[in-house]
Amino acid sequence: MQNLLVASTNVGKLKEYRELMADLPVNWLSLQDVGLAHMEVEETGDTFRANALLKAEAYCAASKLPTLADDSGIVVDALGGAPGVYSARYAPTAEERNAKLIHALEGVPFERRTARFVAVIALVLPDQVTIIAEGRVEGHVGLEPRGTNGFGYDPVLVLDDGRTMAELSSAEKNQISHRGRALAKLHPILHCLFG
Amino acid sequence: MQNLLVASTNVGKLKEYRELMADLPVNWLSLQDVGLAHMEVEETGDTFRANALLKAEAYCAASKLPTLADDSGIVVDALGGAPGVYSARYAPTAEERNAKLIHALEGVPFERRTARFVAVIALVLPDQVTIIAEGRVEGHVGLEPRGTNGFGYDPVLVLDDGRTMAELSSAEKNQISHRGRALAKLHPILHCLFG
Repeated sequence: MQNLLVASTNVGKLKEYRELMADLPVNWLSLQDVGLAHMEVEETGDTFRANALLKAEAYCAASKLPTLADDSGIVVDALGGAPGVYSARYAPTAEERNAKLIHALEGVPFERRTARFVAVIALVLPDQVTIIAEGRVEGHVGLEPRGTNGFGYDPVLVLDDGRTMAELSSAEKNQISHRGRALAKLHPILHCLFG
Repeated sequence: MQNLLVASTNVGKLKEYRELMADLPVNWLSLQDVGLAHMEVEETGDTFRANALLKAEAYCAASKLPTLADDSGIVVDALGGAPGVYSARYAPTAEERNAKLIHALEGVPFERRTARFVAVIALVLPDQVTIIAEGRVEGHVGLEPRGTNGFGYDPVLVLDDGRTMAELSSAEKNQISHRGRALAKLHPILHCLFG
């Protein structure tokens, strides 16, 4: 079994990696597992990729283990790409973030509210090899939040079929989510490296 | 056969890729081969990685082909990392660049002239997957250029055995060169993706 560090203290995220990559002979470790939960890495990058790389590189250097990190958010065209890398810091709570986003788009007609969820996953190996995969979900920012099966900006991203991400079942969401898509691209490479 | 674009108009570089990766079922294409020799991409990044990514991404977007690009140079600790990404632009000719570098280190004793060749190769796939490999050769900047079997800064990087990179045979150089090492790291992943 190959040890692989997921640069996160989020138990839900680690579980997601374990489930989606269950067929790989990989022992998924959290920052707690390797005693690095105290180590903070500031996300100072101006792209999702830069932030994912910052985290993966710092924790790889500290742990000497192959290390995965991700960064994600919502990119709204009518706001010049905002909130983008600031998605998680856009307002204190998810509810407030969604309200703020809808307020920022007041008066913008639905067809011009194009937006996407973007997730970038970076895998940094101790021998200076890096693999980066990006996944996207395209949609529009709705006129109001809808749906309860999700978190973050899920209730405000309306897909082509008219449902928001928060109106999908968990299985549907795993299949089309931005992180799910990035992971699906990473999977054959992980299989090759560690399988 | 998988078509793979090498973002370079340098025939020597394309030949090097073809030789070192000869066992892969890959059809190596140059920018001339795909009609993009006229397209210029400015290397505005402040790291080798940023420049390799800039080039690979721009030519991948234009060609819709998996695209490899590299950036490389010499990093001198006593000069705060210079010339670094400016290695190729440090002076007009290789001879002048080497003379300028040795001049810049005047008075610095040999043991404090630590330096390394760094090569970063980026492979960008059309589906938002990126693979980056870095290779390094550690050494010291010599007190004068030595050797004729090489190019660029080869005559001024003294290896641990006392020879400069320009005093190695081509076979020796391919084995230990920074680009050779980066390619060796990339090889198993290319094999997995296209083999």
